[in-house]
Amino acid sequence: MLIWLRRLLIGSPLPSSRAMHERLTKILALPVFASDAISSVAYATEEILLGLVILGTTVITDTAITLYIALAIVGLLVIVATSYRQTIFAYPGGGGSYIVAKDNLGMYPGLVAGASIMIDYVLTVAVSISSGVAAILSFIPQYQPYTVWIAVGAVAFIALANLRGMRESGTLFALPTYTFVATALILVGIGIYKMLTTGFTVPPPPASAVPPPVHMGASGALFLFIVLRAFASGCSAMTGTEAISDGVPAFRPPESKNAAATLVAMAILLGIVFLGTAFLAWKAQVIPMSQTAEGYQTVFSQIASALVGRSWFYYLFQGATAGILLLAANTSFADFPRLGSIMARDRFLPRQLYNVGDRLVFSNGIILLALIASGLIIVFHGVVNSLIPLYAIGVFLSFTLSQAGMARRLAKRKEQGWRVRVAISSLGATITAIVALVQAITKFTEGAWIVLVLIPAFVYFFSKIHTHYIELGNQLRLTPEDKFTHISNIVLVLTPSLHRGVLPALEYAKGLSPDVRAIHIETDPIDTNLMEQRWERWGGGLPLIILESQYRTLVGPLLEYLAEVKKEKPNAVVTVVIPEFVPAKWWHKLLHNQSGLLLKFVLLFQRNIVTVNVRYYVSG
Amino acid sequence: MLIWLRRLLIGSPLPSSRAMHERLTKILALPVFASDAISSVAYATEEILLGLVILGTTVITDTAITLYIALAIVGLLVIVATSYRQTIFAYPGGGGSYIVAKDNLGMYPGLVAGASIMIDYVLTVAVSISSGVAAILSFIPQYQPYTVWIAVGAVAFIALANLRGMRESGTLFALPTYTFVATALILVGIGIYKMLTTGFTVPPPPASAVPPPVHMGASGALFLFIVLRAFASGCSAMTGTEAISDGVPAFRPPESKNAAATLVAMAILLGIVFLGTAFLAWKAQVIPMSQTAEGYQTVFSQIASALVGRSWFYYLFQGATAGILLLAANTSFADFPRLGSIMARDRFLPRQLYNVGDRLVFSNGIILLALIASGLIIVFHGVVNSLIPLYAIGVFLSFTLSQAGMARRLAKRKEQGWRVRVAISSLGATITAIVALVQAITKFTEGAWIVLVLIPAFVYFFSKIHTHYIELGNQLRLTPEDKFTHISNIVLVLTPSLHRGVLPALEYAKGLSPDVRAIHIETDPIDTNLMEQRWERWGGGLPLIILESQYRTLVGPLLEYLAEVKKEKPNAVVTVVIPEFVPAKWWHKLLHNQSGLLLKFVLLFQRNIVTVNVRYYVSG
Repeated sequence: MLIWLRRLLIGSPLPSSRAMHERLTKILALPVFASDAISSVAYATEEILLGLVILGTTVITDTAITLYIALAIVGLLVIVATSYRQTIFAYPGGGGSYIVAKDNLGMYPGLVAGASIMIDYVLTVAVSISSGVAAILSFIPQYQPYTVWIAVGAVAFIALANLRGMRESGTLFALPTYTFVATALILVGIGIYKMLTTGFTVPPPPASAVPPPVHMGASGALFLFIVLRAFASGCSAMTGTEAISDGVPAFRPPESKNAAATLVAMAILLGIVFLGTAFLAWKAQVIPMSQTAEGYQTVFSQIASALVGRSWFYYLFQGATAGILLLAANTSFADFPRLGSIMARDRFLPRQLYNVGDRLVFSNGIILLALIASGLIIVFHGVVNSLIPLYAIGVFLSFTLSQAGMARRLAKRKEQGWRVRVAISSLGATITAIVALVQAITKFTEGAWIVLVLIPAFVYFFSKIHTHYIELGNQLRLTPEDKFTHISNIVLVLTPSLHRGVLPALEYAKGLSPDVRAIHIETDPIDTNLMEQRWERWGGGLPLIILESQYRTLVGPLLEYLAEVKKEKPNAVVTVVIPEFVPAKWWHKLLHNQSGLLLKFVLLFQRNIVTVNVRYYVSG
Repeated sequence: MLIWLRRLLIGSPLPSSRAMHERLTKILALPVFASDAISSVAYATEEILLGLVILGTTVITDTAITLYIALAIVGLLVIVATSYRQTIFAYPGGGGSYIVAKDNLGMYPGLVAGASIMIDYVLTVAVSISSGVAAILSFIPQYQPYTVWIAVGAVAFIALANLRGMRESGTLFALPTYTFVATALILVGIGIYKMLTTGFTVPPPPASAVPPPVHMGASGALFLFIVLRAFASGCSAMTGTEAISDGVPAFRPPESKNAAATLVAMAILLGIVFLGTAFLAWKAQVIPMSQTAEGYQTVFSQIASALVGRSWFYYLFQGATAGILLLAANTSFADFPRLGSIMARDRFLPRQLYNVGDRLVFSNGIILLALIASGLIIVFHGVVNSLIPLYAIGVFLSFTLSQAGMARRLAKRKEQGWRVRVAISSLGATITAIVALVQAITKFTEGAWIVLVLIPAFVYFFSKIHTHYIELGNQLRLTPEDKFTHISNIVLVLTPSLHRGVLPALEYAKGLSPDVRAIHIETDPIDTNLMEQRWERWGGGLPLIILESQYRTLVGPLLEYLAEVKKEKPNAVVTVVIPEFVPAKWWHKLLHNQSGLLLKFVLLFQRNIVTVNVRYYVSG
């Protein structure tokens, strides 16, 4: 029954030989690996505007500062994408920042990159699912009390889709991703066309719905700080950029070429939609709304309303936005287990994460990610917005380490055209390092400090795990001194009384060793006499040893006798055979002494003792 | 550590030879077995008054009806006690109503009696502990939010005292019982002296605190019904009367004589205090208060206040009352495990209840009672007053069955003076039957129906358990056809790889059988080649069998191979040896595949397969 349910949800097992067939085409890889990055254009422009509006609305409407920030971010995106394109060709086996940093900068930079990106993946799942569910529930408010459980259900759904396998989850997720890209491109197109012809403006929201101008007319250092923070917020558009380079081996051959093409497509789509939105927001004088204000609309929704009204197209676009926000989590589900398996192979994580499940995916990593993310959603009651500042910093830290690693690698190898390439990667590393620093400083009090605590903690655990595996490996390695030695066995059969349930255990034991002894712990001498008589007849000639029990317990006398046996034959292994009933109905178990279980537990702490249960099946 | 804690709480184990020494003297037996019965005088008079007051307060003050009811109850007590005295001599091995009814009336009457009395014991613990705790907390109201947990703590405390042993719990509980008896006798003495000399009255409580006269001036059938119900309520004074006859074997020899003397002492003390209170309540014109009224005082407290004021003696008496209410539970703890062991011996209850623990008490019964009673307290949030109507009916049902059984027994044996004795027991049986009927009718809607459902349910379970044991016994009995046969063993050692952790398992297995095979389930062919080379050197000459695993799982290939082996040697037992790591630190366990556990679980459902873990201890 369980197996049937498993098949229904996850599908039949796939043989190892099907691995190639499960690879992704470019068309399917884009939704799998790029939905995180692409989805971020749904909120990146708004993040910039919200960062700036505390300077007063005129900053947004009267200056092109939003567009400049967007241009800077897209410039950064071009550099980072170019740099990662180099990584894809250098690491066709999958070149996440962990591998690149570890390979070229050393173990600890690698672990820092791994920790950063893992934290990022977990937070992405929790945040994107929660905000996707919140977006959908704003249309059906009567279900809002169940937000947490709907979000956990969504996590479970995406996890299940991923457990079914890479290719099937790609198919499932292609529709919303491409719908979002298409509708967003059409909206941007319509907007630019209108802007060039009739022009259009977005009606400003009521003043009460706009965040208050806390630092109106700020200048100098404070102005710079606020602009930098807005830039740092807008950089959330870039999260997820590294996903493709992590997942190169999931592509159809030629892997690197296909992955690089997908990366370029992603960067272009992302860049166009992001710049287009920023341009329209500036020109149409969009003023962002407080997310807590009544009748809250996203910036993108304000633009879309102004362009196409509340038409079916508007709702299609909004639906696709919610969909891709939910699917951003899918990128993490594709990459986290892969990174986990790589780090497990390198012995920095439990080796269970290295195993490939029977649908050819890293099942344990998928389950682990789903559990941690669900835990976060439950602990934060589905209100995970406060987690957003936490993860950009990890992303940029891993960008920096990855590009610094590439720069070093390219500088060492000195292949054709290496100077330009080193320059690109170095520039990328420098700028992303600055962004990471800006994030850490401007968002420190908002929670960035948590990440700065968590990363070293993770690195510590990784290295502890590593030490354990290495030491264990050394301890287990067979050396020429190791020899296969003969061990003598003494077999003791616990014989509380003599009946058909015990006979199989005695018969079984007799075959195991020349030294088999039946042990009877006496609680009532009258029973013992009776037993000795019956032993003559059915005891199979085995010696019956009676142990007295002054306190009516079994454990004490047995342990004492075991100590005697140890003295008698110090090198022997003692096998304790425990006859066990298997009753026909589960509740019958409650009607029998569980002293076998207790003894088994006690013997667990004794060395050179092996316990064996021999079962007797009761019929009816 | 655990063992040390156990010793501290429960004491060192006692050898079987100490059993006699642990027996109770009469002085200690009275608190152990009679605190339930004696404690009931603390509320029996009040129960009668509360039953009558709905006829109007003049019924209480102007007529002697309270005294008449009390006289009727004491008369009943004399008959029942005389009848039970006969039982004690007839059943020196302990003659609870279960035994007497089963012996003389048959299995089902016995089971009904057993069920009734067990329900009574459980309810007594829950009710008396809850009301004792409530009485104490009325002095320290700031702890009232923790009522439930304090009550559960009190249950645990009494259970622990009983786990320490009968004699020690007797010593512990003697003080409050005798204090209560002494102070109550003194109060009654002072009261009667005053009544005969100066006379005294108890000032009536404010009219708002008195239960409203719902049926003022009722007459005929309604009047009779109300008086009968008051009588039925007052009969709660008799609960616990059977405890001594249940516990005869716990007395020092001569057991029956000592037990009979204790029973008589109990009946006399109970009768004097009960009649005295009823007399004083009538003469001093005590009007009972609603238990929910502000400034609520018990009837006993009203009398005591009027006699000795709020002196130290008053508080001593009140404290002792609370104490004996708590201790009433102790009677159940003394008797429930004993009854449980007798019914387990007769195979109507799980045999675990038959075991004597290492302090010479029926530990499992004590623990079971504590768990059920705590459960009731928690489920009812410590407000268990609503359970009170439930248990008197069970008590009187068991009285009836027990005395009917005695009557039948005496009538059969026709020993000297049997006519009088049969008459006493028959009279007792008839009257208690009527009382049970009155209880069932007058308290049906208050919850008595629950007991009328529970008793048959219990009887059903008892007989199901009985059937299981009997059938199992028949199935397990060795017959002349049973022979000790030789079984051939095939030993399979699961060998995921070849290292020091696996070697002990291989060495151990080699000694067990001439047919030992190492099983390697192949997940990666490269590993297999390497392993085969190493096998030459360290494999001890055992055959290495490689099983291919298309889906990278272990379970499928192993089960297939086991099926093959079964075909090869249908009568052999297959032993599957699973090498197991025991890491030095607990969290290291998380770093290793638990596939051994999974395989063990799967093999649990296969017949003729024995699984063995051979442990390898990792150091450091």
